[in-house]
Amino acid sequence: MLRLLITLSLLLSLTHAREYLISWNDSKSKQEIIEFVNKTTNPESSNYIPIKDRITVFDNDGTLWSEKPMYFQLNFIFDKLNEIAKDHPEWQKKPLFKAAVDGDMKKVLSFGEKGLLELATTVQSGMSVPEYQEQVRDWLKDAKHPRFNRAYSDLIYQPMMELITYLEANDFKVFIVSGGGIDFMRAFIPALYELPAEQIIGSSGAVKYEDGKIIKLPKLNFIDDKETKPVAINYHIGKQPVGAFGNSDGDLAMMQYTDANREHKTLQLYVHHTDAKREWAYDRVSHVGKLDKGLDYALDKRWTIVDMKKDWKVIFPFELNTK
Amino acid sequence: MLRLLITLSLLLSLTHAREYLISWNDSKSKQEIIEFVNKTTNPESSNYIPIKDRITVFDNDGTLWSEKPMYFQLNFIFDKLNEIAKDHPEWQKKPLFKAAVDGDMKKVLSFGEKGLLELATTVQSGMSVPEYQEQVRDWLKDAKHPRFNRAYSDLIYQPMMELITYLEANDFKVFIVSGGGIDFMRAFIPALYELPAEQIIGSSGAVKYEDGKIIKLPKLNFIDDKETKPVAINYHIGKQPVGAFGNSDGDLAMMQYTDANREHKTLQLYVHHTDAKREWAYDRVSHVGKLDKGLDYALDKRWTIVDMKKDWKVIFPFELNTK
Repeated sequence: MLRLLITLSLLLSLTHAREYLISWNDSKSKQEIIEFVNKTTNPESSNYIPIKDRITVFDNDGTLWSEKPMYFQLNFIFDKLNEIAKDHPEWQKKPLFKAAVDGDMKKVLSFGEKGLLELATTVQSGMSVPEYQEQVRDWLKDAKHPRFNRAYSDLIYQPMMELITYLEANDFKVFIVSGGGIDFMRAFIPALYELPAEQIIGSSGAVKYEDGKIIKLPKLNFIDDKETKPVAINYHIGKQPVGAFGNSDGDLAMMQYTDANREHKTLQLYVHHTDAKREWAYDRVSHVGKLDKGLDYALDKRWTIVDMKKDWKVIFPFELNTK
Repeated sequence: MLRLLITLSLLLSLTHAREYLISWNDSKSKQEIIEFVNKTTNPESSNYIPIKDRITVFDNDGTLWSEKPMYFQLNFIFDKLNEIAKDHPEWQKKPLFKAAVDGDMKKVLSFGEKGLLELATTVQSGMSVPEYQEQVRDWLKDAKHPRFNRAYSDLIYQPMMELITYLEANDFKVFIVSGGGIDFMRAFIPALYELPAEQIIGSSGAVKYEDGKIIKLPKLNFIDDKETKPVAINYHIGKQPVGAFGNSDGDLAMMQYTDANREHKTLQLYVHHTDAKREWAYDRVSHVGKLDKGLDYALDKRWTIVDMKKDWKVIFPFELNTK
């Protein structure tokens, strides 16, 4: 929706392609994006890429919207746990669930990834996919981010939405390839980013088909992170991308896979969180969205690195109204 | 490629939508297809479907190309086994592999589905996906169907290609949802049917990511058949279809899932193999493509049933040249 309004206003004033990226300062990263698109869409260029091969993949958490203080889907999971805790007196005797309901994050995290997954599958199973997605949309309507006191859906990155619009205008196809839940993301990303469900790939729980419905089961199916991101890309898309956009070490394999494309010129871009004032500043030692090995690799390979503080005029769409 | 030529020649002569289905006789099935498309694409109709929801799913074997005397992918697997048998003297001591190399089909089948899968994963693993797909394309170039003495890719159904063209011209998005191997189909369907890899869904083996490549492993990942077809649709597409096209009991669940769409009018169509002369005639007792429960269900629900013999002017594209 937001993307549509921005696109329309751009079309009215369009004189040059680079005006698509209006929230980007004239930085090196912006120049590298434009140069890549110009070269690969020019039929006269030796770098020309046929439209069918213009596949790009975007991480979501920390690349297209914020991920601090913790992945937003975890807030959904904890809010849901609290909401239904009264129907589950037995949770008082289960240390993991008791800690979650009591908001004792330190204790919850002591159960490791396995503990988080158990909580996640508990509240995200036992209903059909559309029923679950209705719950997600209801939650997004009311829930507020603790720091900004705004809807989580307000915390999308305006410059990245413009980048998606710019790529699509140049016949690139945009896929989300995220560690976030595939059903969770498909509940709101189609309306928020204007990308169809079939272009949204993520982690998933097992499901079964029954009486015309897809029912979510309390069991993990696939975690879409690190070395499994290329696996998911192969499975859902079946082509090696020409553009990869991420922000953490979890995206490194997908960017290396893209970089390994021998047929076409490629673009790899890391969003580097450098803006503690407007968003957050973190990289090598962060618990969420750690960017360490990936940063070294990107510097070595001269991949595009976006400095959020210097390169972006605004971070969030709501800042546009106050300019 | 074929579809493109046909579409171009149609566009040159187009005066009415129904001219898209030139190889279809004026049958009940053709009328039902046209009525569905007319109603669901007319903004004035109460049955209007927004473009984003115009998702259709097609089985492949027996629905878009032939599947007799056995699924064509099995021919690829047996040809490959024979090709590399000389490098595997140890197979002489393995009854399953010996039977396969000796062409003793009865004995191979006595090992059941597990035996077929073991043979399949043996020749379809140990290389990257692009390397495997190159092998598939090389095989398709040379291999001949035993009955027709023609390339397997010649045995696609001309009327169904026209149906895909007709649906796409009306902004329906076409996905293949087949029991066939996803990497196998993606090797040639994009060029043959003009559908992109990301719209081709099938059974799959496990893979791993390594050094910029996706490597096929000798292990099953997912069988896309019966109740798992809706599961695959949910996973890859994330929307309930409005049109489902199949030919066997293996497609029944996917058609029921489509029929259970409460938001939109839907179309379910079975291709009924009734033409022993031009193709094959089989349904309730066939080992391949059995249509029994599905036929009863379709008759009861008044789904569209295509009588290949009566409804189609030609079956295969090569018949067009001899008309």
